Amino acid sequence: MKPVQLGKLAVELDLECEGDPAVEVRGLAGLRDASPQDLSFVTGERYRKDFELSGAGAYLVPPDFDTDGRPCLRTRAPYADFARAIEVLHPRSKPAPGVHETAVLGGGVALGKDVSVGPYCVIGTGASIGDRTCLHAQVVLYPGVRIGVDCEIHSGVHLRDDVTLGDRCVIQSGAVIGGEGFGFTFRADGTRIRVPHRCPVEIGDDCEIGANSTIDASHPGHPRRGHPEVRTRLGNGVKVDNLVQIGHGTDIGDGAMLCALVGLAGSSEVGRGVYIGGQAGVADGVRIGPGALIGGGTGVAGDIEAGAQVLGYPPMERRLWWRVMAASKRLPQLLRRVREIEKKVDVASGD
Amino acid sequence: MKPVQLGKLAVELDLECEGDPAVEVRGLAGLRDASPQDLSFVTGERYRKDFELSGAGAYLVPPDFDTDGRPCLRTRAPYADFARAIEVLHPRSKPAPGVHETAVLGGGVALGKDVSVGPYCVIGTGASIGDRTCLHAQVVLYPGVRIGVDCEIHSGVHLRDDVTLGDRCVIQSGAVIGGEGFGFTFRADGTRIRVPHRCPVEIGDDCEIGANSTIDASHPGHPRRGHPEVRTRLGNGVKVDNLVQIGHGTDIGDGAMLCALVGLAGSSEVGRGVYIGGQAGVADGVRIGPGALIGGGTGVAGDIEAGAQVLGYPPMERRLWWRVMAASKRLPQLLRRVREIEKKVDVASGD
Amino acid sequence: MKPVQLGKLAVELDLECEGDPAVEVRGLAGLRDASPQDLSFVTGERYRKDFELSGAGAYLVPPDFDTDGRPCLRTRAPYADFARAIEVLHPRSKPAPGVHETAVLGGGVALGKDVSVGPYCVIGTGASIGDRTCLHAQVVLYPGVRIGVDCEIHSGVHLRDDVTLGDRCVIQSGAVIGGEGFGFTFRADGTRIRVPHRCPVEIGDDCEIGANSTIDASHPGHPRRGHPEVRTRLGNGVKVDNLVQIGHGTDIGDGAMLCALVGLAGSSEVGRGVYIGGQAGVADGVRIGPGALIGGGTGVAGDIEAGAQVLGYPPMERRLWWRVMAASKRLPQLLRRVREIEKKVDVASGD
Repeated sequence: MKPVQLGKLAVELDLECEGDPAVEVRGLAGLRDASPQDLSFVTGERYRKDFELSGAGAYLVPPDFDTDGRPCLRTRAPYADFARAIEVLHPRSKPAPGVHETAVLGGGVALGKDVSVGPYCVIGTGASIGDRTCLHAQVVLYPGVRIGVDCEIHSGVHLRDDVTLGDRCVIQSGAVIGGEGFGFTFRADGTRIRVPHRCPVEIGDDCEIGANSTIDASHPGHPRRGHPEVRTRLGNGVKVDNLVQIGHGTDIGDGAMLCALVGLAGSSEVGRGVYIGGQAGVADGVRIGPGALIGGGTGVAGDIEAGAQVLGYPPMERRLWWRVMAASKRLPQLLRRVREIEKKVDVASGD
Repeated sequence: MKPVQLGKLAVELDLECEGDPAVEVRGLAGLRDASPQDLSFVTGERYRKDFELSGAGAYLVPPDFDTDGRPCLRTRAPYADFARAIEVLHPRSKPAPGVHETAVLGGGVALGKDVSVGPYCVIGTGASIGDRTCLHAQVVLYPGVRIGVDCEIHSGVHLRDDVTLGDRCVIQSGAVIGGEGFGFTFRADGTRIRVPHRCPVEIGDDCEIGANSTIDASHPGHPRRGHPEVRTRLGNGVKVDNLVQIGHGTDIGDGAMLCALVGLAGSSEVGRGVYIGGQAGVADGVRIGPGALIGGGTGVAGDIEAGAQVLGYPPMERRLWWRVMAASKRLPQLLRRVREIEKKVDVASGD
Repeated sequence: MKPVQLGKLAVELDLECEGDPAVEVRGLAGLRDASPQDLSFVTGERYRKDFELSGAGAYLVPPDFDTDGRPCLRTRAPYADFARAIEVLHPRSKPAPGVHETAVLGGGVALGKDVSVGPYCVIGTGASIGDRTCLHAQVVLYPGVRIGVDCEIHSGVHLRDDVTLGDRCVIQSGAVIGGEGFGFTFRADGTRIRVPHRCPVEIGDDCEIGANSTIDASHPGHPRRGHPEVRTRLGNGVKVDNLVQIGHGTDIGDGAMLCALVGLAGSSEVGRGVYIGGQAGVADGVRIGPGALIGGGTGVAGDIEAGAQVLGYPPMERRLWWRVMAASKRLPQLLRRVREIEKKVDVASGD
């Protein structure tokens, strides 16, 4: 933690400062938890009450928010600038540019400017790494991998043959991208043969892949409804949490978010801006329309319309699901009631 | 991609060629997506219509399939030979035989002929590796590990003490085999003590283990119904997808398939040829009979009969499950209807 | 396996020996599976029948258990001492103390006495490792990591910046601790920005973390109900199985157990001694009271009371859940019965 004066922080963040610029910021905290050394933030009038009770020393606030004279920085995105303030107050130095002497590089590797390659990295033949990209320790790139500029690849990441990453991607430790999809078929004698999955995985710009997540490669001839392109593909700005499985031939639209332990079977299509909650599962070949919100634990076996908000198994509209769940607790009692009625009205019991 | 003439491909695959052997194959694609440079495949009359509309340059077809004169290769297993054709057209060179100079080998390690050991592998005392087996970069073998012939172990795999793999196994990156099972007991003072799990995991021939999957070791004295043998064991030809958890003392029969994010608790028995869909869970000590099909997301808390096809929680026969799911959406409405009837027939409401 | 005489084993375990101390123990097994060379154990009268039928050569038994003269060792915790006997009969040598010549250590690293650092470990600036702690091969510690005494860190573990582990912890291969939590916000232009997660993860004494599990760091200002402290924290004696996801800002009480594939979203609180079964999920900000038992596959979206035993989605008391599950199979039939009654009593059908 590096203390900083509010006025200097305003300059660093390129924001307007109101109140005493000499106020010293030593920490960051939410409105309710902040002490006088802390910078906090308010995103709107909804948090007026918390703001009034808050003991922070300074605030990031929207342009028209009445601060009653408390020191503040004005911004149209208070939480985003709070995030930037964390970078200023908790700076974390990346490894310096340069290739560590223990890294093993294959032939024809192309490194951009100011690339950092950590200890015990292994970089396959013909791989390329863009400017300022940082590989922490023990990253393995198989032959032909291409990584864009300004990426950060954490320790223990494995990128298989010909995987491509766009610019500004962050890959957390232990993620495996481009492993062979789960696809087998039968020989004439009834034994299984692997279908070689050799279509390179493509990942766009500004993506994040969580720790120990896995994204599989597809194979030529792999089916996807009405698509000649069978590569596994993530668009731009896709955010994937930890321990997520993305199957062969899946196509994920820009800005989609996949929470932890989600499983996408092969050949599914996830539209732009879709949100999938933790532990949800998506079956083979399913299409999820843009902007849909899939609740945690949902089992998606059929297509989902654009903008739908669903939950449960099978997926239902959110409010219906909650009503079904509430009603389900009364199911044993309901069986008894129906039996009672059957006696009364002389209908043969269904029991 | 390496273009090849159809006649030459026929020779490589040892198949009969019909039509112009000089047709040049430059790619591979499904029937609907294929262009004139592509080889495609038909598995039977079911795809007759797609075949007729297909624009592929050549086809893999069953022996008696009428191709109306289009160039083709005849085979009893078109999809399997399509898989072999991928190997021809998308060859992927494995690392050359030899032990990389950075590999660290313990005492008494036995290496077969033409073994390949990649950079930064660490091989424990007394381990053995069969002929032509390839370890990619950064594989760790604890002491006593034994690996058969013609295996491929991808980067970042960790095999713990005394794990044995059969022949022709493929282990995807990040898999951990032989970690200590989740077993603890209480000391007299009420604190927990680990039960050391020291029974080596045994994996048969022709198995595949997916990326970041985990297979735990068991311990002597670990309970399994009627079995003196408590080792975690996978038979031959078992295929395990990514992020699968296989608990201590589990026994998996030949040819079983486990999809991504499946969790098997300890001491369960999975019969020959069982298929378990993604994210399904199997409780402690459960027996699943041979040939059973467990749908994705199923929660298996009790035994499953051989050949059963089940889904849901608790598992039900597939068609029943779909009817229950459809009916569950009408549950809130059903409660209202029963209340209405109760009023009408003068039964005290159960509400 | 190292054979040992019963009398010598008694001395090693500091227990009282009854019967012939020269009985040779060559193996360990459960009561039903034991042969005359095996040591087995009985935890109480409940297993009297199995004891009578058992063919073991010797037994660990409670103080007042009538053994009818069979050779035994007396103990208040038979299973715990069986675990200790496994250590004696199946000893597993840890790597010898010392830093392997290939390990890369940053500046200011502090190593305790008899520390073992394996091949290709990478230890960041300012990290510290307590006495007798063992790092197997290829462990990566980012800068500032602190590890207590007598820990065992298996191969391929990645600990990110400033993570702290207490004493006697065991971390299985491939676990990633301290990765950045899944937290983003929006810039004024609508694009996403990562919120830097820089609060170090804290793990207490006697914890175990399973293979390929992930525990995320939180960020300053991250919300948790009524808590100024936002660090992800595991208390003492917490046991975490394989492939578990623990989200940013989660707080887990002493002695809690989390089974495989469990997912905890951010900011949840798990009380002392809570047990969470496999594949269960816990939503953001939920509080689970001390001693609660959450069954496998449960979807926890709201708070759970101390000591509650719940199952299902939404979580219900165990017995209710089983009744609801049994009733749910009869739902399609119930719909038909209600329709029948409606006809009979002349109520407009709800269909």
